[in-house]
Amino acid sequence: MKSEVTSAPFSYDGLDRVIHEKARLGVLTSLMAHPKGLAFADLKQLCGLTDGNLSRHLQVLQEAGLVEVTKGYEGNRPHTSCRLTKAGRRRFLDYLVVLERLVRDAAKAAGREQSALSRLGILPT
Amino acid sequence: MKSEVTSAPFSYDGLDRVIHEKARLGVLTSLMAHPKGLAFADLKQLCGLTDGNLSRHLQVLQEAGLVEVTKGYEGNRPHTSCRLTKAGRRRFLDYLVVLERLVRDAAKAAGREQSALSRLGILPT
Repeated sequence: MKSEVTSAPFSYDGLDRVIHEKARLGVLTSLMAHPKGLAFADLKQLCGLTDGNLSRHLQVLQEAGLVEVTKGYEGNRPHTSCRLTKAGRRRFLDYLVVLERLVRDAAKAAGREQSALSRLGILPT
Repeated sequence: MKSEVTSAPFSYDGLDRVIHEKARLGVLTSLMAHPKGLAFADLKQLCGLTDGNLSRHLQVLQEAGLVEVTKGYEGNRPHTSCRLTKAGRRRFLDYLVVLERLVRDAAKAAGREQSALSRLGILPT
């Protein structure tokens, strides 16, 4: 017996590749939590990234219009500040809707292991 | 005023790169939903992938020990079947715990947009 599948329910097309990268997910979540922006040094620590890695990921996010990077001075010291753009916030929210659907699909799929999932915190006990 | 940050709450180290790739997330969720395994052709349709793409991702998952691929015959026709290994199921569940934490962190971070998130389905209305 051949099963008929007429759509691709597990394609998750909404998982925007610019956002989906692991380190960038951390950067975007940090910036979402700080709508007025974060200093480069604080963002680096929150995400556990090196200077080089954070710079590279910020450049990708900036080129995609998701993040604004402002270079200036605080007293005499150079100060780089990063914040989510309005479009960035919206696109991240759209992405999160798809991500949440994936978590739900997978939790539902693993229904036969419901007790294990409850233990792990995915499903309510 | 300099803020003190002593850890990296947004590093999401548990987001295993083998699993985190968008197409592979679809493959793993499909296989989670079919614990007895899926035919290559059905998996391809569920995930909206081409033959070449699915083969490539299955190879990565197989080499990582997450998926078993069995090549055989059904009548006279070649038949390839794929299923999640026990270790694969466990690692995917571990991954999902981190992913769920990320969704919660981001939803919490966007608390000021609570009404927007409710509309999008991330937070309960």
